[in-house]
Formats: sequence, C-alpha cells, structure tokens
Amino acid sequence: MSEKIPYKIYLSEDEVPKAWYNVRADMKNKPAPLLNPGTLKPMTAEELDGVFCDELVKQELDNDTAYFEIPQTILDYYKTYRPSPVVRAYNLEKALDTPAKIYFKFEGNNTSGSHKLNSAIAQAYYAKQQGLKGVTTETGAGQWGTALSMACAYLGLDCKVYMVKTSYEQKPFRREVMRTYGADVTPSPSNTTKVGREILERFPDTPGSLGCAISEAVETAVTHEGYRYVLGSVLNQVLLHQSIIGLEAKAALDKYGVKPDLIIGCAGGGSNLGGLISPFMGEKLRGEANYDFLAVEPASCPSLTRGKYAYDFCDTGMVCPLAKMYTLGSGFMPSPIHAGGLRYHGMSSILSQLYHDGYMRAATVKQTEVFAAAEQFARIEGILPAPESSHAIRAAIDEALKCRESGEEKTILFGLTGTGYFDMVAYGQYNDGLMKDSVLTDEALEESLKGLPKVDL
Amino acid sequence: MSEKIPYKIYLSEDEVPKAWYNVRADMKNKPAPLLNPGTLKPMTAEELDGVFCDELVKQELDNDTAYFEIPQTILDYYKTYRPSPVVRAYNLEKALDTPAKIYFKFEGNNTSGSHKLNSAIAQAYYAKQQGLKGVTTETGAGQWGTALSMACAYLGLDCKVYMVKTSYEQKPFRREVMRTYGADVTPSPSNTTKVGREILERFPDTPGSLGCAISEAVETAVTHEGYRYVLGSVLNQVLLHQSIIGLEAKAALDKYGVKPDLIIGCAGGGSNLGGLISPFMGEKLRGEANYDFLAVEPASCPSLTRGKYAYDFCDTGMVCPLAKMYTLGSGFMPSPIHAGGLRYHGMSSILSQLYHDGYMRAATVKQTEVFAAAEQFARIEGILPAPESSHAIRAAIDEALKCRESGEEKTILFGLTGTGYFDMVAYGQYNDGLMKDSVLTDEALEESLKGLPKVDL
Repeated sequence: MSEKIPYKIYLSEDEVPKAWYNVRADMKNKPAPLLNPGTLKPMTAEELDGVFCDELVKQELDNDTAYFEIPQTILDYYKTYRPSPVVRAYNLEKALDTPAKIYFKFEGNNTSGSHKLNSAIAQAYYAKQQGLKGVTTETGAGQWGTALSMACAYLGLDCKVYMVKTSYEQKPFRREVMRTYGADVTPSPSNTTKVGREILERFPDTPGSLGCAISEAVETAVTHEGYRYVLGSVLNQVLLHQSIIGLEAKAALDKYGVKPDLIIGCAGGGSNLGGLISPFMGEKLRGEANYDFLAVEPASCPSLTRGKYAYDFCDTGMVCPLAKMYTLGSGFMPSPIHAGGLRYHGMSSILSQLYHDGYMRAATVKQTEVFAAAEQFARIEGILPAPESSHAIRAAIDEALKCRESGEEKTILFGLTGTGYFDMVAYGQYNDGLMKDSVLTDEALEESLKGLPKVDL
Repeated sequence: MSEKIPYKIYLSEDEVPKAWYNVRADMKNKPAPLLNPGTLKPMTAEELDGVFCDELVKQELDNDTAYFEIPQTILDYYKTYRPSPVVRAYNLEKALDTPAKIYFKFEGNNTSGSHKLNSAIAQAYYAKQQGLKGVTTETGAGQWGTALSMACAYLGLDCKVYMVKTSYEQKPFRREVMRTYGADVTPSPSNTTKVGREILERFPDTPGSLGCAISEAVETAVTHEGYRYVLGSVLNQVLLHQSIIGLEAKAALDKYGVKPDLIIGCAGGGSNLGGLISPFMGEKLRGEANYDFLAVEPASCPSLTRGKYAYDFCDTGMVCPLAKMYTLGSGFMPSPIHAGGLRYHGMSSILSQLYHDGYMRAATVKQTEVFAAAEQFARIEGILPAPESSHAIRAAIDEALKCRESGEEKTILFGLTGTGYFDMVAYGQYNDGLMKDSVLTDEALEESLKGLPKVDL
C-alpha cells in the first residue's frame, strides 16, 4: 500500500456495519452453556425469560447464527457517537522509535466514556420492543450505569441503577451524570429490596459490593411487573453487540489494506476484548487468516492467566446461573491497593473457551507500569486513557519496544476502550508516587478457589 | 441539494484548513488597540514582548493580514483531536418537531473537554520556537489550564499554572489531569510570587480569585528567564487561532451546499464565538453573504447586552493593559449563585467592535433555563454539554421552537464548545431542584461600572 494512512480512519455512514457478528457460529468447541444453580442443568429459554427480555435470551443461547441484523433504531443511535475512529498512533511510534505500526480503536468519545454504550442501547432497545416499562442493573465505578442511563433516556425507558454505596458516595459525579439522564440511582445495599434490607440489618455500615448490587437489581427486576435485568459484560449477548468494535476496526483497516499481526485488548469480563477480536477471530477459526491475540489482565486480578477453568457463579451473591469460565472464585476480591478496574473474578465463557483451545494468549501487567504507560500515552497522543484501557496500552508499548530491538515491522492494533476523567483519584495517587503494586499470591488464590461449586457433568 | 446529509460531517485530512483567518483584515473599523495603563498610549510590540512571545505579539497587533499559515507541527497536533465534526442534530429536530435544520460544531472530543486546545497548542508552539523554557498561565475551572498542559506535554515545554485556590481544592480532578500532563500546578495566592505573598499576608484565608492568579502568572513570567505568559481568551491572537472552528465548520457545510441563516455561540471572553463566526463574518463584512449572528450570555454576566463600551482593565488586578470592550467593570464578579461559567467581565475587542457596528446580535439567558436545555440535549443527542455551551443550546432550541410556530425552515448552526464531565456539582444542584436564577441588577451594574478607568483619547 503506497497510499498514506491518515492519522484517523473514519468509516462513512455507508461503510458502517449493519449486522453484529456472532463468533460462536465459527467455534468448533462452543462455549459451555449457563447452568441453573439449583438443578445444574443448562438454563432454558423459559428460565432465562423471567430475568432477561425475550430477544436477548435468543441471542444469549444462539451458538449458530453468524450475523444478527442491527435494528434501525440502534443504527440511528450508533450514529450519535459512532463510527469511532481507528487511529494510527504516529506520535507514539515516533516517541518509541519503533519500526512497529501501532493502531488503536478509540471507543471513549461518548459521554459514558467507554464502549459500554454499544450493548446498553441494544439491551434497552429490545426491552422497549417487548413493551417493558424499564430495566434494572448494578454499577460499580459507573461506566455501565452511565451507558445504560443514556440508552434509556433516548428510548424513554425507566432505568433503575443500584450503585455500590461507597461509589455512590465517593463518585458523586458519575451519580449525577446518571441522574441527568433520568436514571433512578439507589445506593446499595438499600431498603428497597429484601436482600438489601437483610444485609443492612446484619451489616448496617457496609460499604456495599457489586455482588450485593447485582442481587438487588435482579430482585427488583423479577418482583416488578414490566422490568428486566441487564448486564454490561461477560454474557454472550454482550460480546455479540460489542462485535461492532471489531467490525468497524476491520472495515477501517481493510480500506487501507492493513492487516494487523497482533491484536491486544484489556480483559475484565471480556466485553471489549471479545468485541474487538470477534471478526478477526472468525477468520482465524475458519482458517482464512492468522492473528496473534493478546488479552491483558491486572496482576492483581488474573483470571485467564492464573484462574481455574471451571463452572462458577457469575456473581458474588451466588444468585445468578453458573458459567464455565476461567475464574478466581466468585468470592474473589482484588487487593484494596488495586485501582485499575478489570476486577471481575471470571471471564466470558466464549473467551474462556477460545483461550482454552489455544486461539489466544494472555498476560498480566502491574498497575504502576499501567499508569506509567497511561501517562506516557496521554502526553504523546493527547487522550487521557481509562486505567482499564491502559493495560492494553502497556502491552502495546512493550511489544513495540521489542520490535525496536528486533527490527520487526509488526502491525499492532489495540483497543482503547475509554477515557479516565472519572479516575483521577487513582491518577493522583500515581502522580504523588503513592501507588503500589499488588500481585495475587498463590495462597490467596488457593483460598479463593475453595469456594468453587462442585459441578460434575 | 438532494444528497442526504449524514449525521456527522467529518473533513478528510486533505480538506482540513491549513491557515487561520484573521477577521480584523476585513473589518473597516478595526478593534481599538490595547493601551499601556501607565501612559494610556497604544501598547507597542516592544512593550508586549516581555510578556508574550514574539510571533504572538505580531499576531496580536496585525489588523491587516487575512491569513496566517498554520505551522506543520500545529497541524500535526490538530490531527490528534481534529477535525471536529459538524453534527446534524436530527434527533433534536425530531424531538422539537421543528422545520428548522439544526447543526452544531462539536469541540468537546478532546481531553481538555473544550475548544481551548486550539489556541493552547499554538501559543505553546511559538514559545517553543522562540527557544523559551516554559509558559505561565492562570486557570479557574481548569479547562484552559488542562489544554495548556496537554500542549506543553506534547512539545516538551515547562508549564506553570496558577489555579484559583478554591478550585484547586474543590476540583482535584482537573488539578490531577494537569499534573498527569506534567504541569506544575500552584494554588493561588501562593508564596511563590511577591503579589501572592502580599495578598496572603493581608488575607491569609482568601479563597483566591482569577485576578490574583493572573497577577501571579504574569509576575512569574516576567521574573523568570525564558518564560512568557499565555492567555486563553479575549486576545486577538486567540480569536485568530480559534478561527479553525469556523473554517472547519464552513468547509463541512459547503461540502453539502448548506448555508446557515443563523449562527449562535455562547460568549464569555469571546474565544469560541469569535472563532466560530470569523469566516462567516468575513463574508458578511465583504458583502458576499449575509448571516444572522447571535451571542448568548448569562443573565448574571451580560457584558455585551448590558455592559459599557469603554476602555477597561483586562484583569481584576489592574496590572494588564487596557482594552476597549463591552465591560461590566474589571472588579465585576457574577453572583455566587451563578454556576454556568462565562464569568469574564469584558468581551474580546474584536467582537465588541463588531457588535458596536451592528454586525451581530446578543441576548441573555437564565441559568435554570440553560440547564434545562442541557439536560434535554443530553438525553436526546447523547452528549453531556458544558454549562457554557448550553447557553448556545438554549438559544438554538428557542429559535427552533419559533420556527415550529412560524413554519420557517431556518438553518441554525451553533457551537458546542465542550463537555460537562467536570461540572457535575452544578448539574447535581439542578437535578436536586436547588438551582436558582440570578439576574444582574441595575444598581449592582452601576456600582461596578464606577471602577472604570478614565481614558480620554
């Protein structure tokens, strides 16, 4: 290709993907099904219908359909913040003095500050289509809650968010963003649910937890007529919606004949990584092309690299179905030192299966190294990245520096999932030299894995 | 034009403007010159050289050159966050059920969260070119300080920011963003300057003021070898750099044959409004086209609509030159109730002259109406706007509603200067129903104008 590649590649409205891609269709070994925690049998559509809305249940269970057409309303909403650009990181390449070619797909240019909106609008849309009144969810730091609030505001759907109490109090900005979009935000645990009241009675001063907030959101959905529960990561349906990231990235690179050698994404529950790599992975699974995929995890929450591949609860509260995945145990909590997000104890069943089958690699990075990369990137490329996204930046910089040594002109694509405007407390710790690293110890891991449910299929 | 206009119009790299446009070149009545506050004579280049760097002094004083070529380094940096899109607000039009066609130029998709970066990179570049070590500035809410920090990080220039003490303490996120970009951020008043020490001695518990921070920044620049002072608004040079907004907007609209009837911008010091309207105003001044221009001010800080057209100090501290402008008096402070930004007591000399000569209109809006428009816009169009920008949104919505009554298919363009992520305290007040309006009283205005310097030219 002799054509000069622009700093940013934008797709035109005509070029934007009109269907999501379901990578499960091309997997020989399908991801293991969700299990009913009572019967230990695969969850049926009927069992899931009470929690999720109908179309999403279909998407969750469909391992065969390769493409799902994106409804026009969702395409219209995508236009308000998509297509997101593929950026050629010329400035970073120059600063690193590397022969590597670095691209990133930037998903942070929307008010939720992350890629979460891609699935939030889809989940809200199908709830609206089904004639529901509203949806419930939990949020920790608030990216997912913000995204869902925005989607619900657009569609005129009620949105009830249970926000971990400590975040509710310590992150008032996120809370106010959600309220500005009309969401009903409740600090969790609360007295609006049975499970919340029980926890408050036993632990009146608890700061709350994501597990508890999930339990409250699910209870509210199943006890209120016309409500369903929605979730921002881990699920198959979420990876399906997030495939828009990879589809756009691939279309943009294809325009200039660019084929990445290495694709890097940060990995928490897997929604961003799964979305970014899906269409490329499809080619690899079909034997049409080869790519090196790298999942990057925090050293303090290393589910793929050090977790066990087993059935486990999706939630700390053990009320949700069991999923087969790489897990650190559903009771796992990263060290309180950890500030970089990606705290989920497990990993998407799809990505777990692909990793298990050898289709991708995984690595861990320490958080001071992550923030060093974040700062370097911000100063050179302008964008202040989210700590989560900065895991991928760290790995991309390290790979580019290896290319400087080897002289290899590797083409690297990484996912820049979001911006760090609401993470300045962690940046402040780093700026003041107060940030420390934490690495999960073998003893703590062993202890955490003791809680795995006994599932003998 | 039968071609369907996309939701977002992006210019390609080839189409991006390569020169800034200086509207003064087409003004018959040039803006009045800055005066030396001691001699009351026009400031000479020599007098300005000690404060500003050489090229910027040239740009400040040049009323005749129509185009200034943008240096390649600045063009390269612009690529990291520009071109910014012109967005057709289809969703808003539908929600308002108006025949009006609404476009906005969105300048918020960069880490500074506003258009300020357009001039920050230019001012930092010329300082670097001159071989200077660094620049000094003041910041209140922090948008300008953030932008300057980003620009200095990119160029490897030292950046000293005096941040109003109360903002430094109450807006730690903004402070940490600046520090992440390597800026040295000092709460003002501080003991690093003579003026700061004097104020601290007399008022040890003062929360600080923008006037004091300016004085400290200027003192630091003139007393440190290799430093100059830079300013984010009001100055002619700033409007020159910000013309990139209007040039891009015009190029994007021209691609689709769209000619706006009405162009709306919020107005504080005038940098955004001046930048947006410059190329359109040029056509009007040359008699090539007609446009209706509307400046929107807060009712609590109405310099154009209710101020006096007179020479006044640019700063509260009365150390800077005098500018002829619409002013509320250099000692003016908006009511403490006011949360919506745009607090400057005066208005750019260029815009003041154009307004005085009848080339543009101005109007005021109350802040509860501004936040109502902000919330409506956020829910419909997705973007959470800055309170400042929301003044323009309010006016655009009101104009579109008038079109619904009259049936007129007016084409409206407004400037969406930035995002509101760091303004959630004000949004929270609004969400809680605690926000009140304040309108400047005639008595307070009269009192404030008593401080105008006596200048008899």
